[in-house]
Amino acid sequence: MDTTQSALSNQIKHLIEQNSIAELMRLLREAHPADIADAVDMLEEEERLRVFSLLDDQTAGEVLDETEPEATTALIKGLDSERTADILDEMPPDDAAEILADLPKKQAEELIGLMEVEEAADVQELLQYPENSAGRLMTEEFISVRAGMTASRVIEMLRELAPKAETAYYLYVTEPDGHLVGVLSLRDLIVADPDARISDTMDRKVVSVGVDTDQEEVARVVSKYDFLAIPVVDGKEKLVGIITVDDIIDVIEEEASEDIYALGGTTEHPEAVHTPIPSAMRRMPWLLITVIGEIFTARVIKGYELTLQEMFALVLFIPVIMATGGNVGTQSLATTVRSIALGEQAGRSVWQVIRREAAIGVMLGVTIGLFTAAIAVKWIGTPALGLVIGISMTLTLTFSAVLGVLIPILFKALGRDPALASGPFITTLNDITSVTIYFLLAIRLIHLFPA
Amino acid sequence: MDTTQSALSNQIKHLIEQNSIAELMRLLREAHPADIADAVDMLEEEERLRVFSLLDDQTAGEVLDETEPEATTALIKGLDSERTADILDEMPPDDAAEILADLPKKQAEELIGLMEVEEAADVQELLQYPENSAGRLMTEEFISVRAGMTASRVIEMLRELAPKAETAYYLYVTEPDGHLVGVLSLRDLIVADPDARISDTMDRKVVSVGVDTDQEEVARVVSKYDFLAIPVVDGKEKLVGIITVDDIIDVIEEEASEDIYALGGTTEHPEAVHTPIPSAMRRMPWLLITVIGEIFTARVIKGYELTLQEMFALVLFIPVIMATGGNVGTQSLATTVRSIALGEQAGRSVWQVIRREAAIGVMLGVTIGLFTAAIAVKWIGTPALGLVIGISMTLTLTFSAVLGVLIPILFKALGRDPALASGPFITTLNDITSVTIYFLLAIRLIHLFPA
Repeated sequence: MDTTQSALSNQIKHLIEQNSIAELMRLLREAHPADIADAVDMLEEEERLRVFSLLDDQTAGEVLDETEPEATTALIKGLDSERTADILDEMPPDDAAEILADLPKKQAEELIGLMEVEEAADVQELLQYPENSAGRLMTEEFISVRAGMTASRVIEMLRELAPKAETAYYLYVTEPDGHLVGVLSLRDLIVADPDARISDTMDRKVVSVGVDTDQEEVARVVSKYDFLAIPVVDGKEKLVGIITVDDIIDVIEEEASEDIYALGGTTEHPEAVHTPIPSAMRRMPWLLITVIGEIFTARVIKGYELTLQEMFALVLFIPVIMATGGNVGTQSLATTVRSIALGEQAGRSVWQVIRREAAIGVMLGVTIGLFTAAIAVKWIGTPALGLVIGISMTLTLTFSAVLGVLIPILFKALGRDPALASGPFITTLNDITSVTIYFLLAIRLIHLFPA
Repeated sequence: MDTTQSALSNQIKHLIEQNSIAELMRLLREAHPADIADAVDMLEEEERLRVFSLLDDQTAGEVLDETEPEATTALIKGLDSERTADILDEMPPDDAAEILADLPKKQAEELIGLMEVEEAADVQELLQYPENSAGRLMTEEFISVRAGMTASRVIEMLRELAPKAETAYYLYVTEPDGHLVGVLSLRDLIVADPDARISDTMDRKVVSVGVDTDQEEVARVVSKYDFLAIPVVDGKEKLVGIITVDDIIDVIEEEASEDIYALGGTTEHPEAVHTPIPSAMRRMPWLLITVIGEIFTARVIKGYELTLQEMFALVLFIPVIMATGGNVGTQSLATTVRSIALGEQAGRSVWQVIRREAAIGVMLGVTIGLFTAAIAVKWIGTPALGLVIGISMTLTLTFSAVLGVLIPILFKALGRDPALASGPFITTLNDITSVTIYFLLAIRLIHLFPA
C-alpha cells in the first residue's frame, strides 16, 4: 500500500536474484535505514541475511532498530553472534538494551559477553531498570555543561565533541557532582551573547523524570510540555540520562496499540510476515473467557421455570438487550481507558467520573428502553412484554455504563493495566447481568402476560 | 489523580476566594502555561475568566492552546472579542487556525476581522487547506538559508533573528524562488567549520510532504524517520511551511483516540467538565444501529418454525455463539485498524492479509467449536445439538474473522476512515449472521434431535 517500501524490497529481491551485488550495495548506501528496515520486513530469511552481509555495522544497527520485532528476532537468530555483537556495539545503548531484553536470557548474556567492554557495561546498566521505566528508555549520550562557562566556550566544546544529532538539542547544566541545575536549548546558545555565562541564559526550572518513572508518565510529560527530550535523574537528583522525543513517539504508539488490542480482546502485535498460529494462540484466552461466561448466561436462562410459550416471546429480545448492553459497556470502557491514558482524569474524583457515566447510562437506558419497548409492543402485541423489555433495557444500560468505567478504574487502583478490563471481559459480565435482570423482571410480571 | 494539577487549581481557587490578586499573579507568572491550562480545565467559568484577565496575551495564547476543547470554547465565549483577537495574534498561526476552525463560522470571521492584518492573513491562508491536512498543521515560521552562505554567516543571522525555539532545529536550504534543495540541523551548523559553505554541510535528500498530505501520513513519516520537524512544500516543490514534532504527537494521540472510540462504538472526546448530555447524544446512533440490527436477529429466530421444545435447547446457546463470534470479529477488527494506522500493511496484498485472518478464524473456530460442543453434549445430553453448535461455532468464527479484516480494508479502499467499521457495526453484522448460520444448521439436523 506504500509504494516506495514495496518498490525498495522488490528492487532488492531483483538485484539479489540477478546477483548484482555492486548495484545492491549502491542502492543500500543511498537508502535511509528506516526504508531499508521496512523493505527487510518484507524479505525472505535468506534475502534478509544477504542484505545484512552488505551493511556496515553502524547502518545495520540503525536498520535493526526499526525492523518489526519478528524480523529482528529472526535476523539475530540468523546472524553470526560475533557480527550481532559488533552491530549492538554501534547502536545507542537504549536501543541495544531493548533488543537484548526481548531475547532469551542465555542468548542475551552470550551477546553481551561478545560486546566491547564499555558498550556492554552501558547496556547492562540500562537493563537493570524495570521494563517500561524511564531508565530503560534513556540514553547516556547527553551533553552537560557548567553554569560558569561562556556561550562561545560551549559552542567551541560542541564543535570538538561533534555529538550525535538526536541528543544535542538541549544542553543540561550540572554541578560538578552531577546535580541537575538548569537547561538551555541549542537555539538559546546560538542566540546568546557569545560572552554571556550559561548561568545567565539557562532555564532553572528544569522538568525531569526519575529513572523509575513509568514510560507512560514520561510520555505524558513530554507531550504536555512539547519537549524534544527530557532529562532523567536518579534518587539524588543527579542527571543520569535523557529520553528523546522519537522514543516518546514509539511509547505513545505502543501504549495506544496495547489499549486498542485490549479493547478488541487480544494482546497481539500484528507482525509483518509471521504465520497465523501465534496470533490464534494470543486470541484464544479471551474467547475461552467469553464461552465460559456465556455458559453462565445460558444457565441463567435455563434456571427460570417459565412455560415454553412464555419463554418464546422473551427469547426473541435476548440478543437485543445483550448486544445493546454490551455496546454501552464498551463505549464507557473505551472512553475511560483513553482518558486514563491521556491523563485527563487528573483532579476529578472517582465519584465524579462514575456519577457522570451513570447519568449517561440512565439517559441512554430510558431512551433506548422506550424505543425497544415500542418495537416489542408493535411487533409481538404484548404490552407486558414491552414493559419488561423497557425496564430491563434501562437497568442494563445504566449498569453497563457504570461497569465500563468502574472496572478499569478499579484495575488502575489495584496497580494493574486498566486495559486488562478488556472488551470481552466487560461484555461477558454485561451479558450475564443483563439476562439475569431481564428474566428476574419477567418472572415478576409474568402474570400480566396473556396465556 | 495528578496531585500537581489539582494542587495548582486549588491554589488558584483559594487565592481568588481570598481576593489575593498580587499573589495569584505571581503564582501564574511562575507556572508553566501547560500547567495553567490543566488547572483552567478544572476551574469554574468565573474563575477561568478571572485567571485570563491576569495573563498577558502571549501567555494567554499558550494556555488557550493547551486547554481542553470544551474549556477553550467556553473561554472564547466568555472573553471580550477584542481581547480574544489580541490573544490569537500572539499565537502561532497554526494553533490560532485550529481554534478558529472549531468556532461557528460567523464568530470566527468576526475574530479574524479584529486581528492584526498580517496575522489574520497568515491564519486565513492556513484555513484554506482542508482539515487534517499538512497545510493546516504547518507553521510558516521556519528558517531558510541559501546554499552559498558560510556556517558562521548563518550563525550570525540566527543571532539577529532570534527565532522561536520550536522552529529552529532544522535550517532549510532554498533557492531564491523558494525551491527546497537541502536541510541541515542546528547541530550540523555548530559542528561545521565556520568558513564552510552550507552546500558542503547540507543533506540534499530532504524528505518533505505536500500541503494536501493527510496528517496521519505526515505522522507516519515523522515517526518513521525520527524527525523533529518536516518541511511542507506546495505543488511546485516550494517550501511553504514546516510541521514540528509536538504537533505530530498531538496527531498521533488524536488518531489513536479516534480508533479507540470507534472500536468502543462512540465518537466522543472525553472532556474534563462537561455535562453528560452531549456524550449520551454521541453514543446514541451506535446503539440505535445495534437495536435495529438485533431486531433482525430476533426476526431470524422467529422465522424458523421449530417446535418450542426444539427451540428451547437451541436458545440456550444463542448467547454463547453470538458473543464469541462478536469477539473474534472485534479482535480481527482491532488488529486490522491498528495495523492500517501504523502503516504496517505496506507491501502486503489484500488477499494475503485476508487469507491470514481466515486461517486464524478457522483455527479458533475448530478449537472453540469442539470445546463448546463438548460442553453442550455434557450439559444437555443431545449429541446432535453438540454437532450443530460445533459446526456453527466454526463457521461463525471463520466468517467473523474475515469480516473484521474485510470491512475496514473495504472502507479504506472507498476512501473512508477504516475505524468507521466500528465495534458495534461489526458485532451486529456478526450477530445476524451467526444466528442465521446456527438456525439454518439446526433445521437441517433437527431430525436427529430427540423428540
